[in-house]
Amino acid sequence: MAEFMSLQQKRSDETRAAILSAAQQLFAKSGFDRTTVREIAQLAGIDAALVIRYFGSKEALFADSVSVEVVLPNLDEIPPEKKGEALTKHFLYQWESSPTKDVYQVLLRCAAANEHAAERARTIFATQILSGIAKIKHQQNPRQCAGLIASQFIGLALCRYIIQLPPIVAMTHEEIIRYIGPTIQSYMDAKTSDE
Amino acid sequence: MAEFMSLQQKRSDETRAAILSAAQQLFAKSGFDRTTVREIAQLAGIDAALVIRYFGSKEALFADSVSVEVVLPNLDEIPPEKKGEALTKHFLYQWESSPTKDVYQVLLRCAAANEHAAERARTIFATQILSGIAKIKHQQNPRQCAGLIASQFIGLALCRYIIQLPPIVAMTHEEIIRYIGPTIQSYMDAKTSDE
Repeated sequence: MAEFMSLQQKRSDETRAAILSAAQQLFAKSGFDRTTVREIAQLAGIDAALVIRYFGSKEALFADSVSVEVVLPNLDEIPPEKKGEALTKHFLYQWESSPTKDVYQVLLRCAAANEHAAERARTIFATQILSGIAKIKHQQNPRQCAGLIASQFIGLALCRYIIQLPPIVAMTHEEIIRYIGPTIQSYMDAKTSDE
Repeated sequence: MAEFMSLQQKRSDETRAAILSAAQQLFAKSGFDRTTVREIAQLAGIDAALVIRYFGSKEALFADSVSVEVVLPNLDEIPPEKKGEALTKHFLYQWESSPTKDVYQVLLRCAAANEHAAERARTIFATQILSGIAKIKHQQNPRQCAGLIASQFIGLALCRYIIQLPPIVAMTHEEIIRYIGPTIQSYMDAKTSDE
């Protein structure tokens, strides 16, 4: 019986993983609005009713399919004046080399076009980015500091990976670190106003 | 006869304007993909075939409905060290007070989700922003300089007006000019590499 249950559990996990993988591919290709539950089910090779049974709704499936853990580097070990550079290197790794790089693209692409995805982006900002920045430094207003950093990194991501502005696509990692690093540093060092 | 022609011309101009206005509203609300020619025609109170007769295709209509003239301020009259601040003030005016502010939002929202709109954004960057920046200063690489400035402004626009990150929405104009102004200035002053 235990063996049967574990086999059932294994099948269930596989189905779940197949749905998530199909959803990620389709959200990445077509965005949130144009992707249908039917298409996701078709790509996963299952019945559409199963998608709803496993995830509840397209909105909930989207949230799960872009559930990233934004791991910030341990900035305690980095000299204060090198933190902007370290965060910029981390950004480039996350967006270009990490296993979750595609998830970031999907999230940004969808967040710009759809309020549900934007809400997901705000939650990730509030629960992960903000707490990471708040830990790094004792700022009067870590929210504003984190927001400024996000505004530059999100703009860089949009210009380089989504809209693909030629001069931003052409920049080497070294150039991005040289120009964007000091911006991030300046936002970390800024004397922001009280909340 | 001349009177008749001018009446016909007037009607034609009115129809064209009604289609453009309907398209702008719907693209803003639903994005490029979810907006149909049929809906645009319905909102304009005309037949769908007329939309195609006037504009050719949904893609061409989109391009016309986001055809903005990005007028950069005359930076020649501004002291070199004040140019970043002046461009940031100009950004805030364009996105929050100018008659074309809605058009910017539509363009950014759609450019993130749709390749056709992204191409339109790249064209506006190449023909208007880049030439504006190139005129302002004699840089080794005005393309890179303009790209860096665009990356911060586009990120600010996305965080403030589209995704609406709370700390960025909460910032006053004065705060934005205080923090973002020096970033823009630093990109204008950067010793960028040769093309």
